[in-house]
Amino acid sequence: MKKCTRNEAIFLIATEDRKGLLSIISSFFYEHNFNIIKCQQYSDLVENKYFMRIRIDLADMTITRQHLEESFDGLAKKLQLDYTINYTADVKKVAVMVSKTSHCLYDLLMHYSEGELDCEIPLIISNHPDLELVADRFQIPYYCFPMLPGKKAEQEAQVTNLLKKHHIDLVVMARYMQVLSDDFISLYPNRIINIHHAFLPAFQGGNPYQRAWERGVKMIGATAHYATADLDEGPIIEQDVERINHENTPDELKNIGKDIERRVLTRAVTAHLEHRIITAGRRTIVFPR
Amino acid sequence: MKKCTRNEAIFLIATEDRKGLLSIISSFFYEHNFNIIKCQQYSDLVENKYFMRIRIDLADMTITRQHLEESFDGLAKKLQLDYTINYTADVKKVAVMVSKTSHCLYDLLMHYSEGELDCEIPLIISNHPDLELVADRFQIPYYCFPMLPGKKAEQEAQVTNLLKKHHIDLVVMARYMQVLSDDFISLYPNRIINIHHAFLPAFQGGNPYQRAWERGVKMIGATAHYATADLDEGPIIEQDVERINHENTPDELKNIGKDIERRVLTRAVTAHLEHRIITAGRRTIVFPR
Amino acid sequence: MKKCTRNEAIFLIATEDRKGLLSIISSFFYEHNFNIIKCQQYSDLVENKYFMRIRIDLADMTITRQHLEESFDGLAKKLQLDYTINYTADVKKVAVMVSKTSHCLYDLLMHYSEGELDCEIPLIISNHPDLELVADRFQIPYYCFPMLPGKKAEQEAQVTNLLKKHHIDLVVMARYMQVLSDDFISLYPNRIINIHHAFLPAFQGGNPYQRAWERGVKMIGATAHYATADLDEGPIIEQDVERINHENTPDELKNIGKDIERRVLTRAVTAHLEHRIITAGRRTIVFPR
Amino acid sequence: MKKCTRNEAIFLIATEDRKGLLSIISSFFYEHNFNIIKCQQYSDLVENKYFMRIRIDLADMTITRQHLEESFDGLAKKLQLDYTINYTADVKKVAVMVSKTSHCLYDLLMHYSEGELDCEIPLIISNHPDLELVADRFQIPYYCFPMLPGKKAEQEAQVTNLLKKHHIDLVVMARYMQVLSDDFISLYPNRIINIHHAFLPAFQGGNPYQRAWERGVKMIGATAHYATADLDEGPIIEQDVERINHENTPDELKNIGKDIERRVLTRAVTAHLEHRIITAGRRTIVFPR
Repeated sequence: MKKCTRNEAIFLIATEDRKGLLSIISSFFYEHNFNIIKCQQYSDLVENKYFMRIRIDLADMTITRQHLEESFDGLAKKLQLDYTINYTADVKKVAVMVSKTSHCLYDLLMHYSEGELDCEIPLIISNHPDLELVADRFQIPYYCFPMLPGKKAEQEAQVTNLLKKHHIDLVVMARYMQVLSDDFISLYPNRIINIHHAFLPAFQGGNPYQRAWERGVKMIGATAHYATADLDEGPIIEQDVERINHENTPDELKNIGKDIERRVLTRAVTAHLEHRIITAGRRTIVFPR
Repeated sequence: MKKCTRNEAIFLIATEDRKGLLSIISSFFYEHNFNIIKCQQYSDLVENKYFMRIRIDLADMTITRQHLEESFDGLAKKLQLDYTINYTADVKKVAVMVSKTSHCLYDLLMHYSEGELDCEIPLIISNHPDLELVADRFQIPYYCFPMLPGKKAEQEAQVTNLLKKHHIDLVVMARYMQVLSDDFISLYPNRIINIHHAFLPAFQGGNPYQRAWERGVKMIGATAHYATADLDEGPIIEQDVERINHENTPDELKNIGKDIERRVLTRAVTAHLEHRIITAGRRTIVFPR
Repeated sequence: MKKCTRNEAIFLIATEDRKGLLSIISSFFYEHNFNIIKCQQYSDLVENKYFMRIRIDLADMTITRQHLEESFDGLAKKLQLDYTINYTADVKKVAVMVSKTSHCLYDLLMHYSEGELDCEIPLIISNHPDLELVADRFQIPYYCFPMLPGKKAEQEAQVTNLLKKHHIDLVVMARYMQVLSDDFISLYPNRIINIHHAFLPAFQGGNPYQRAWERGVKMIGATAHYATADLDEGPIIEQDVERINHENTPDELKNIGKDIERRVLTRAVTAHLEHRIITAGRRTIVFPR
Repeated sequence: MKKCTRNEAIFLIATEDRKGLLSIISSFFYEHNFNIIKCQQYSDLVENKYFMRIRIDLADMTITRQHLEESFDGLAKKLQLDYTINYTADVKKVAVMVSKTSHCLYDLLMHYSEGELDCEIPLIISNHPDLELVADRFQIPYYCFPMLPGKKAEQEAQVTNLLKKHHIDLVVMARYMQVLSDDFISLYPNRIINIHHAFLPAFQGGNPYQRAWERGVKMIGATAHYATADLDEGPIIEQDVERINHENTPDELKNIGKDIERRVLTRAVTAHLEHRIITAGRRTIVFPR
């Protein structure tokens, strides 16, 4: 289901802000004879931090990956850059976790089938058997690990073993209705995306649509964020809202919310897979396409 | 600055939901030979409540207002209707309260000057002298009652005396940075509109833009609501949001927020003046135009 | 895949505007002991037309459908009402027509699988074999009628025979890339919904995304409309847009447009299935939910 | 009314796309000891063009403007760059042209008074006397040059003389209902911004709201563009839309449209004054803030 046919390396860089960074880093690539397809920067003047996303064309690369990486690492050490290198040729492996609700799963699989998600989805994991039918429709293996009382650690061990075995890069919680333990989360820092069915920080916790109805808000929303130990407090990747009115019952809010959740989660996963996100504390830098 | 040239009566009705209400009420007007310009209803099935807004053409009225009112009151008593009758010929008097920030005031006065607000604004009240210049530009009397330490009751007495003297129907807090006392608010139930510079219930209280920046939200908003004793908890009339990105500093959020606050407050005031709002507990029914 | 469990009749009514219509019609239902769940009206003062949608609870119906229909028809004759009666118990049959592009088809089937479309989809029809896989995934029969040169009439005859055989109520052209003949369209007046991949009336005809790029617009859109003999000129049901920027290539516009097309078409089909649309010349009245 | 207190130079650059541009240009500033506050680039792969906006901090400038300009010009000649240098210290002079409609004028003057437009507005020009009152309120000189039959050239000469005398940098047509001659426009290439009250390219020409109503569109919009000899065909700077419904009369569309026109024109003027726009044929590159 790989969409990207370009052969690129995408560097995500964070460092302290100072003069000359753009000149030095862009010159590095010029001297190594690379074409910069796109370079995006952001100076956080509040925290004096510098962030950069740089896409390099590898089509006419004359050196090896290893050579490129070693050379860049030399520069990074000198400049004290935090960075990752991501190759579009290395397709990311994504596991989707679900419970009983299928709408976000369907939306992901639909975009995946259309070639709009640049990844492989080798498996779907659930704590319930209900959505096996959906997985079957898209010919994706479905693993069900029920959550038995007092057996959370065991269940999570089964899940994480499976994730490791499949070399999963990104975990997407597409309405997986279990709180992951800190241990689980620490295995995938900034690599677990969750969808919360409210416009955070409003309506944290359960039953957001019911509470939105009771409060009489005029718009409802959804929020995709990286999972952290602190529930609903992870760095926000994407949000969206839709206008509602007094006639909408709590049930209708839930239905309207489904379409918001779908698109918010799919957009967040897309941004992650396109290597457009850098996390900085509780905030994310999401470079536009 | 009166915009409306139609001669209408607008009935806002709330009662317990049951069969036949629409038939009985619409027949009342038909039998009295009135033309119904528009009839909007809403059945709240959760609380079993019925709400109706009905616009009656008075152009060819053959009976007196008093006769109409007495006849309708008879029906209302029989059906146990809560209701108000609002005549478009009776232009509402609006007082705008401000502190030092002018953007919402300007937007209201601009729409007022354009004939887009169906009201009279006989005065602007502030606890600071700063915005007298703006009032002067639009030739509206400006009253300044400074808030001295320990003298809140006295200041509010001055304000409410002035409001009474001018027979004010609606008070608009266009960034008036004082919490009104319960006594003040109880004089104008559902007739004081406040603008909060955040998407409630997120970021209640002070400094919402700074806190939105720190939390890293991807949209910011504003909320217009009726003032109640419980600050930021009043029934919401209108909300809107705008997409932001990681580059926006807290100061820029404040500036982006200004345009959201402007339009949200102006829309809420417009809805009130067009008699499109019924309040039900913490919720509002805002009938569309 | 039926979603609706309420037992309702929905009347869609159009007539000349005059006094008393609401009273007379609502009284009809009251006298026959029906509960009106919702009544929506619209007076087109420009053309002096009156439109009404009225939802009647049939849960405690004491008379037969036939009796109800005959009684109402008597009233309708007297008042010269154009009307349709739609029963939520009679699930509508929908045929989806496609060519090679799957995104709108997937979105419809996803919502259908989720129980969000109140209909049955007994078949998918195409002029190409490509999307049989998608139909298979959702276990829906797929019929392929290739369009051979000079054989348009024959192909359409095959299609319309199949539609008749299956008692199809609504035809959805989910990116079916053939112009239907006038004969075909006249079989299903206001019952064929097409999606055009542009914000009509801008960019009628082919290649809208390329032309949008060349013109340098800052938003692109999609339009769902009833098919009429005049291509891209049918009554518009729903439109939406998305903000784009200078960086988006024509190909990216096409991809952004896919999500707009998906939601616009699905919303239009939903509105039709919920009996919320009355067509009046080139305009549609789409009553809100 | 100057808002900007930073001392910056903003370079807008266009050239043929090729390797090394970012490295060479950013190194130029680094070598001259300038801090790059922000650097935005765009490679138009369709037309093989490269566009750059670069903001330089002049706070600690050790060389003269002349020196900087001469040095950069040397580089530009070598690289064949088209460019402009814009200093935030040189506040732009803006003339607003109006006819009888005040809503866009008010919105501009409101934002101007709030310090949100980084410019000076030394004069307002009209072909009608009607809006002198508005100009007076904001203490801005108002010049009225009526358009007499057969005297267009004379009237335009009076206007352009005044513009020259005041060293006007930007002309804003805030609903000036006259077509400017080619001669006029050629004096201010890409420096005349017009607001069209429709979502171009839909509804070019007159009466767009009436035609939108007749066509039954579900959203209406407005478009700000640079004026060119070809009416309504100039490069688009900004567009926005709002959802409407069947109940909205042509007059209501006009009123809804006023708020869209206001914000679209004000945003376009803001983008121009912040030196965020490069024009390329019929398209504009509008760099985000």
